[in-house]
Amino acid sequence: MSLLQHIKSLIEVSDALEMQFSNMIQLQQHKKGTTLISPVQTCNYLYFVKTGVIRGYYYCDEKEITNWIAKENEFGTCFYSFLKSIKSTEYIKCIEDCELEMISFNDLQKLYNKFPVTEKLGRVILEDYYLKLEERLLSIQFKEAKERYLHFMTNKPDLLNRVPLGYIASYLGISQETLSRMRAS
Amino acid sequence: MSLLQHIKSLIEVSDALEMQFSNMIQLQQHKKGTTLISPVQTCNYLYFVKTGVIRGYYYCDEKEITNWIAKENEFGTCFYSFLKSIKSTEYIKCIEDCELEMISFNDLQKLYNKFPVTEKLGRVILEDYYLKLEERLLSIQFKEAKERYLHFMTNKPDLLNRVPLGYIASYLGISQETLSRMRAS
Repeated sequence: MSLLQHIKSLIEVSDALEMQFSNMIQLQQHKKGTTLISPVQTCNYLYFVKTGVIRGYYYCDEKEITNWIAKENEFGTCFYSFLKSIKSTEYIKCIEDCELEMISFNDLQKLYNKFPVTEKLGRVILEDYYLKLEERLLSIQFKEAKERYLHFMTNKPDLLNRVPLGYIASYLGISQETLSRMRAS
Repeated sequence: MSLLQHIKSLIEVSDALEMQFSNMIQLQQHKKGTTLISPVQTCNYLYFVKTGVIRGYYYCDEKEITNWIAKENEFGTCFYSFLKSIKSTEYIKCIEDCELEMISFNDLQKLYNKFPVTEKLGRVILEDYYLKLEERLLSIQFKEAKERYLHFMTNKPDLLNRVPLGYIASYLGISQETLSRMRAS
Protein backbone atom coordinates (compact mmCIF):
# COMPACT_ATOMS: atom_id res chain seq x y z
CA MET A 1 0.00 0.00 0.00
CA SER A 2 1.21 3.51 -0.76
CA LEU A 3 1.18 6.24 1.86
CA LEU A 4 -1.53 8.06 -0.08
CA GLN A 5 -3.72 4.94 -0.12
CA HIS A 6 -3.15 4.55 3.61
CA ILE A 7 -4.10 8.19 4.18
CA LYS A 8 -7.24 7.77 2.08
CA SER A 9 -8.30 4.91 4.32
CA LEU A 10 -8.21 7.32 7.29
CA ILE A 11 -9.48 10.67 5.99
CA GLU A 12 -11.28 12.13 3.00
CA VAL A 13 -8.72 13.43 0.53
CA SER A 14 -9.79 16.23 -1.83
CA ASP A 15 -8.12 16.66 -5.20
CA ALA A 16 -6.26 19.71 -3.91
CA LEU A 17 -5.01 17.78 -0.90
CA GLU A 18 -4.03 14.81 -3.03
CA MET A 19 -1.96 17.10 -5.22
CA GLN A 20 -0.35 18.63 -2.14
CA PHE A 21 0.50 15.20 -0.78
CA SER A 22 1.97 14.15 -4.10
CA ASN A 23 4.26 17.17 -4.01
CA MET A 24 5.33 16.55 -0.44
CA ILE A 25 5.77 12.79 -0.26
CA GLN A 26 9.25 11.69 -1.23
CA LEU A 27 9.90 8.15 -2.32
CA GLN A 28 13.31 6.67 -1.52
CA GLN A 29 14.80 3.29 -2.15
CA HIS A 30 17.46 2.02 0.22
CA LYS A 31 19.60 -1.06 0.40
CA LYS A 32 19.52 -3.35 3.43
CA GLY A 33 21.81 -1.97 6.11
CA THR A 34 21.46 1.68 5.10
CA THR A 35 21.50 4.08 8.03
CA LEU A 36 18.72 6.65 7.65
CA ILE A 37 19.33 8.55 10.86
CA SER A 38 22.02 8.54 13.51
CA PRO A 39 22.14 10.36 16.84
CA VAL A 40 24.08 13.35 15.53
CA GLN A 41 21.17 14.29 13.27
CA THR A 42 17.68 15.62 13.78
CA CYS A 43 15.09 13.21 12.47
CA ASN A 44 13.11 15.51 10.18
CA TYR A 45 11.13 12.81 8.45
CA LEU A 46 8.23 10.57 9.19
CA TYR A 47 8.86 7.34 7.31
CA PHE A 48 6.13 5.15 5.88
CA VAL A 49 7.27 1.70 4.87
CA LYS A 50 6.00 0.74 1.42
CA THR A 51 8.16 -2.38 1.24
CA GLY A 52 10.80 -3.72 3.60
CA VAL A 53 11.46 -3.33 7.33
CA ILE A 54 13.17 -0.55 9.28
CA ARG A 55 14.07 -0.31 12.93
CA GLY A 56 14.97 2.32 15.50
CA TYR A 57 17.64 1.45 18.04
CA TYR A 58 20.05 3.02 20.45
CA TYR A 59 22.86 2.08 22.78
CA CYS A 60 22.44 1.61 26.50
CA ASP A 61 25.61 0.68 28.41
CA GLU A 62 27.19 -0.25 25.09
CA LYS A 63 24.33 -2.65 24.41
CA GLU A 64 22.24 -2.15 21.32
CA ILE A 65 18.53 -1.91 22.08
CA THR A 66 15.85 -2.10 19.40
CA ASN A 67 13.16 0.40 20.30
CA TRP A 68 10.76 -0.19 17.41
CA ILE A 69 10.38 -2.14 14.19
CA ALA A 70 8.19 -0.94 11.31
CA LYS A 71 7.19 -3.05 8.33
CA GLU A 72 4.90 -2.51 5.33
CA ASN A 73 2.09 0.00 5.95
CA GLU A 74 3.58 1.15 9.24
CA PHE A 75 5.15 4.43 10.23
CA GLY A 76 8.52 4.79 11.85
CA THR A 77 10.50 7.74 13.10
CA CYS A 78 12.36 8.87 16.17
CA PHE A 79 9.21 10.54 17.50
CA TYR A 80 11.02 12.55 20.13
CA SER A 81 13.43 14.05 17.64
CA PHE A 82 10.75 14.49 14.99
CA LEU A 83 8.14 16.15 17.17
CA LYS A 84 10.55 18.34 19.10
CA SER A 85 13.00 19.06 16.27
CA ILE A 86 15.93 18.05 18.44
CA LYS A 87 18.79 15.66 17.84
CA SER A 88 17.80 12.03 17.53
CA THR A 89 18.57 9.64 20.35
CA GLU A 90 18.27 6.74 17.97
CA TYR A 91 19.68 5.21 14.85
CA ILE A 92 17.21 4.27 12.15
CA LYS A 93 18.35 1.55 9.79
CA CYS A 94 16.94 -0.60 6.99
CA ILE A 95 16.76 -4.27 7.93
CA GLU A 96 15.86 -5.19 4.34
CA ASP A 97 15.98 -3.43 0.99
CA CYS A 98 13.29 -0.80 1.45
CA GLU A 99 10.98 1.49 -0.43
CA LEU A 100 10.13 4.32 1.93
CA GLU A 101 7.76 7.22 1.55
CA MET A 102 8.72 10.18 3.65
CA ILE A 103 7.17 13.43 4.67
CA SER A 104 9.16 16.15 6.40
CA PHE A 105 8.22 17.80 9.68
CA ASN A 106 8.00 21.22 8.00
CA ASP A 107 5.77 19.95 5.23
CA LEU A 108 3.55 18.27 7.79
CA GLN A 109 3.13 21.56 9.65
CA LYS A 110 2.25 23.28 6.37
CA LEU A 111 -0.32 20.58 5.69
CA TYR A 112 -1.84 20.98 9.16
CA ASN A 113 -2.18 24.72 8.54
CA LYS A 114 -3.48 24.56 5.00
CA PHE A 115 -5.70 21.47 5.23
CA PRO A 116 -7.27 21.16 8.69
CA VAL A 117 -8.55 17.70 7.79
CA THR A 118 -4.95 16.50 8.08
CA GLU A 119 -5.11 17.32 11.79
CA LYS A 120 -7.51 14.41 12.03
CA LEU A 121 -4.95 12.26 10.28
CA GLY A 122 -2.34 13.24 12.86
CA ARG A 123 -4.72 12.54 15.71
CA VAL A 124 -5.94 9.19 14.44
CA ILE A 125 -2.44 7.89 13.71
CA LEU A 126 -1.21 9.07 17.10
CA GLU A 127 -4.12 7.42 18.92
CA ASP A 128 -3.17 4.15 17.33
CA TYR A 129 0.52 4.49 18.16
CA TYR A 130 -0.27 5.67 21.69
CA LEU A 131 -2.31 2.55 22.41
CA LYS A 132 0.40 0.32 20.98
CA LEU A 133 3.01 2.03 23.11
CA GLU A 134 0.90 1.68 26.25
CA GLU A 135 0.37 -1.99 25.49
CA ARG A 136 4.12 -2.42 25.10
CA LEU A 137 4.87 -0.62 28.36
CA LEU A 138 2.45 -2.84 30.28
CA SER A 139 3.83 -5.92 28.57
CA ILE A 140 7.43 -5.07 29.43
CA GLN A 141 6.51 -4.17 32.99
CA PHE A 142 4.29 -7.07 33.85
CA LYS A 143 4.36 -9.91 31.41
CA GLU A 144 6.74 -12.80 31.55
CA ALA A 145 9.29 -13.17 28.76
CA LYS A 146 7.39 -16.17 27.40
CA GLU A 147 4.13 -14.23 27.21
CA ARG A 148 5.83 -11.34 25.42
CA TYR A 149 7.35 -13.68 22.90
CA LEU A 150 4.01 -15.42 22.25
CA HIS A 151 2.31 -12.05 21.83
CA PHE A 152 4.93 -11.00 19.28
CA MET A 153 4.60 -14.34 17.49
CA THR A 154 0.83 -13.96 17.28
CA ASN A 155 0.86 -10.34 16.15
CA LYS A 156 3.92 -10.18 13.94
CA PRO A 157 4.67 -13.77 12.88
CA ASP A 158 6.20 -12.71 9.55
CA LEU A 159 8.84 -10.59 11.30
CA LEU A 160 10.31 -13.64 13.02
CA ASN A 161 11.81 -14.69 9.70
CA ARG A 162 12.69 -11.22 8.51
CA VAL A 163 14.33 -9.68 11.56
CA PRO A 164 17.52 -10.99 13.23
CA LEU A 165 16.75 -12.67 16.52
CA GLY A 166 18.97 -10.32 18.50
CA TYR A 167 16.88 -7.31 17.45
CA ILE A 168 13.65 -9.02 18.46
CA ALA A 169 15.17 -10.07 21.79
CA SER A 170 16.18 -6.55 22.81
CA TYR A 171 12.85 -5.20 21.52
CA LEU A 172 11.08 -7.64 23.83
CA GLY A 173 13.49 -6.93 26.67
CA ILE A 174 14.77 -10.50 26.93
CA SER A 175 18.18 -12.00 26.30
CA GLN A 176 18.95 -13.62 22.97
CA GLU A 177 19.76 -16.90 24.72
CA THR A 178 16.35 -16.98 26.37
CA LEU A 179 14.65 -16.15 23.09
CA SER A 180 16.56 -18.89 21.26
CA ARG A 181 15.55 -21.38 23.93
CA MET A 182 11.90 -20.35 23.57
CA ARG A 183 11.97 -20.71 19.82
CA ALA A 184 13.50 -24.18 20.09
CA SER A 185 11.00 -25.43 22.67
CA MET B 1 -6.57 26.60 35.37
CA SER B 2 -9.88 25.55 33.86
CA LEU B 3 -10.09 23.12 30.97
CA LEU B 4 -11.31 25.93 28.72
CA GLN B 5 -8.30 28.08 29.62
CA HIS B 6 -6.03 25.12 28.94
CA ILE B 7 -7.69 24.56 25.57
CA LYS B 8 -7.33 28.24 24.71
CA SER B 9 -3.60 27.95 25.32
CA LEU B 10 -3.45 25.27 22.61
CA ILE B 11 -5.90 26.33 19.90
CA GLU B 12 -7.91 29.34 18.83
CA VAL B 13 -11.39 29.13 20.30
CA SER B 14 -14.21 30.92 18.49
CA ASP B 15 -17.28 32.12 20.39
CA ALA B 16 -19.33 29.30 18.87
CA LEU B 17 -16.77 26.72 19.94
CA GLU B 18 -16.51 28.24 23.42
CA MET B 19 -20.27 27.92 23.81
CA GLN B 20 -20.13 24.33 22.60
CA PHE B 21 -17.37 23.52 25.09
CA SER B 22 -19.33 25.13 27.91
CA ASN B 23 -22.27 22.91 27.10
CA MET B 24 -20.17 19.77 26.92
CA ILE B 25 -17.75 20.16 29.81
CA GLN B 26 -19.11 18.77 33.04
CA LEU B 27 -17.69 19.88 36.36
CA GLN B 28 -17.74 17.35 39.19
CA GLN B 29 -16.51 17.52 42.75
CA HIS B 30 -15.38 14.34 44.42
CA LYS B 31 -14.15 13.45 47.87
CA LYS B 32 -10.75 11.84 48.38
CA GLY B 33 -11.05 8.11 47.85
CA THR B 34 -13.92 8.27 45.38
CA THR B 35 -13.79 5.64 42.66
CA LEU B 36 -14.51 7.21 39.29
CA ILE B 37 -14.09 4.10 37.16
CA SER B 38 -13.63 0.42 37.86
CA PRO B 39 -12.89 -2.42 35.46
CA VAL B 40 -16.51 -3.42 34.96
CA GLN B 41 -17.24 -0.06 33.33
CA THR B 42 -16.30 1.61 30.07
CA CYS B 43 -14.37 4.79 30.69
CA ASN B 44 -16.42 7.24 28.64
CA TYR B 45 -14.80 10.38 29.99
CA LEU B 46 -11.61 12.26 29.57
CA TYR B 47 -10.87 13.88 32.93
CA PHE B 48 -9.11 17.19 33.33
CA VAL B 49 -7.91 17.88 36.86
CA LYS B 50 -8.82 21.38 37.98
CA THR B 51 -7.78 20.74 41.57
CA GLY B 52 -6.60 17.59 43.30
CA VAL B 53 -4.90 14.41 42.13
CA ILE B 54 -6.32 11.29 40.49
CA ARG B 55 -4.66 8.05 39.58
CA GLY B 56 -5.21 5.05 37.35
CA TYR B 57 -4.26 1.64 38.69
CA TYR B 58 -4.90 -2.02 38.19
CA TYR B 59 -4.10 -5.36 39.74
CA CYS B 60 -1.36 -7.63 38.51
CA ASP B 61 -0.95 -10.92 40.40
CA GLU B 62 -3.01 -9.39 43.21
CA LYS B 63 -0.57 -6.48 43.44
CA GLU B 64 -1.88 -2.99 42.89
CA ILE B 65 0.05 -1.12 40.20
CA THR B 66 -0.29 2.62 39.67
CA ASN B 67 -0.26 3.23 35.93
CA TRP B 68 -0.57 7.02 35.93
CA ILE B 69 -1.06 9.99 38.22
CA ALA B 70 -2.65 13.25 37.05
CA LYS B 71 -2.62 16.49 38.98
CA GLU B 72 -3.81 20.04 38.28
CA ASN B 73 -3.88 20.93 34.56
CA GLU B 74 -3.29 17.35 33.48
CA PHE B 75 -5.55 14.89 31.73
CA GLY B 76 -6.30 11.43 32.95
CA THR B 77 -8.34 8.57 31.61
CA CYS B 78 -8.05 4.89 30.84
CA PHE B 79 -6.97 5.68 27.28
CA TYR B 80 -7.52 2.17 26.02
CA SER B 81 -11.07 2.01 27.27
CA PHE B 82 -11.80 5.61 26.27
CA LEU B 83 -10.45 5.43 22.73
CA LYS B 84 -11.79 1.97 21.94
CA SER B 85 -15.06 2.20 23.90
CA ILE B 86 -14.34 -1.07 25.64
CA LYS B 87 -14.35 -2.05 29.31
CA SER B 88 -11.68 -0.37 31.41
CA THR B 89 -8.73 -2.40 32.59
CA GLU B 90 -8.11 0.14 35.32
CA TYR B 91 -9.59 1.75 38.36
CA ILE B 92 -9.53 5.53 38.47
CA LYS B 93 -9.65 7.03 41.96
CA CYS B 94 -9.30 10.42 43.61
CA ILE B 95 -6.20 10.66 45.80
CA GLU B 96 -7.38 14.03 47.16
CA ASP B 97 -10.64 15.95 47.16
CA CYS B 98 -10.94 16.85 43.48
CA GLU B 99 -12.58 19.24 41.11
CA LEU B 100 -12.68 17.52 37.75
CA GLU B 101 -13.80 18.74 34.37
CA MET B 102 -14.93 15.97 32.09
CA ILE B 103 -15.79 15.58 28.48
CA SER B 104 -17.42 12.44 27.13
CA PHE B 105 -16.12 10.38 24.23
CA ASN B 106 -19.32 10.98 22.23
CA ASP B 107 -19.18 14.73 22.77
CA LEU B 108 -15.55 14.74 21.72
CA GLN B 109 -16.41 12.97 18.46
CA LYS B 110 -19.18 15.55 17.87
CA LEU B 111 -16.66 18.31 18.48
CA TYR B 112 -14.17 16.78 16.04
CA ASN B 113 -16.88 16.64 13.38
CA LYS B 114 -18.37 20.06 13.96
CA PHE B 115 -15.20 22.04 14.72
CA PRO B 116 -12.22 20.68 12.79
CA VAL B 117 -9.91 22.92 14.81
CA THR B 118 -10.49 20.57 17.74
CA GLU B 119 -8.72 17.85 15.75
CA LYS B 120 -5.60 19.91 16.30
CA LEU B 121 -6.34 19.91 20.00
CA GLY B 122 -6.57 16.13 19.98
CA ARG B 123 -3.35 15.82 18.03
CA VAL B 124 -1.35 18.26 20.15
CA ILE B 125 -2.45 16.73 23.43
CA LEU B 126 -1.72 13.23 22.13
CA GLU B 127 1.74 14.23 20.92
CA ASP B 128 2.56 15.43 24.40
CA TYR B 129 1.23 12.30 26.09
CA TYR B 130 2.91 10.05 23.53
CA LEU B 131 6.32 11.57 24.27
CA LYS B 132 5.75 11.25 28.02
CA LEU B 133 4.77 7.63 27.61
CA GLU B 134 7.83 6.87 25.49
CA GLU B 135 10.04 8.56 28.06
CA ARG B 136 8.46 6.43 30.77
CA LEU B 137 8.91 3.23 28.79
CA LEU B 138 12.60 3.94 28.25
CA SER B 139 13.03 4.90 31.88
CA ILE B 140 11.41 1.69 33.15
CA GLN B 141 13.36 -0.42 30.71
CA PHE B 142 16.77 1.06 31.13
CA LYS B 143 17.16 3.39 34.06
CA GLU B 144 18.14 2.31 37.53
CA ALA B 145 15.57 2.68 40.30
CA LYS B 146 17.58 5.56 41.78
CA GLU B 147 17.60 7.46 38.49
CA ARG B 148 13.85 6.98 38.07
CA TYR B 149 13.23 8.29 41.55
CA LEU B 150 15.44 11.35 40.99
CA HIS B 151 13.66 12.05 37.69
CA PHE B 152 10.29 11.90 39.44
CA MET B 153 11.57 14.13 42.27
CA THR B 154 12.83 16.70 39.76
CA ASN B 155 9.73 16.71 37.60
CA LYS B 156 6.94 16.20 40.11
CA PRO B 157 8.38 17.24 43.49
CA ASP B 158 5.00 18.36 44.84
CA LEU B 159 3.49 14.91 44.32
CA LEU B 160 5.93 13.35 46.78
CA ASN B 161 3.98 14.94 49.61
CA ARG B 162 0.57 14.45 48.09
CA VAL B 163 0.66 10.86 46.91
CA PRO B 164 1.14 7.83 49.20
CA LEU B 165 4.61 6.37 48.79
CA GLY B 166 3.28 2.95 47.76
CA TYR B 167 1.54 4.45 44.72
CA ILE B 168 4.69 6.25 43.61
CA ALA B 169 6.75 3.08 44.11
CA SER B 170 4.58 0.93 41.86
CA TYR B 171 4.34 3.78 39.32
CA LEU B 172 8.14 3.83 39.17
CA GLY B 173 8.32 0.05 39.14
CA ILE B 174 10.30 -0.22 42.37
CA SER B 175 9.45 -1.74 45.73
CA GLN B 176 8.18 0.48 48.50
CA GLU B 177 11.09 -0.60 50.73
CA THR B 178 13.63 0.51 48.13
CA LEU B 179 11.81 3.81 47.65
CA SER B 180 11.71 4.44 51.42
CA ARG B 181 15.45 3.75 51.64
CA MET B 182 16.12 6.20 48.80
CA ARG B 183 14.05 8.91 50.43
CA ALA B 184 15.86 8.45 53.74
CA SER B 185 19.34 8.56 52.21
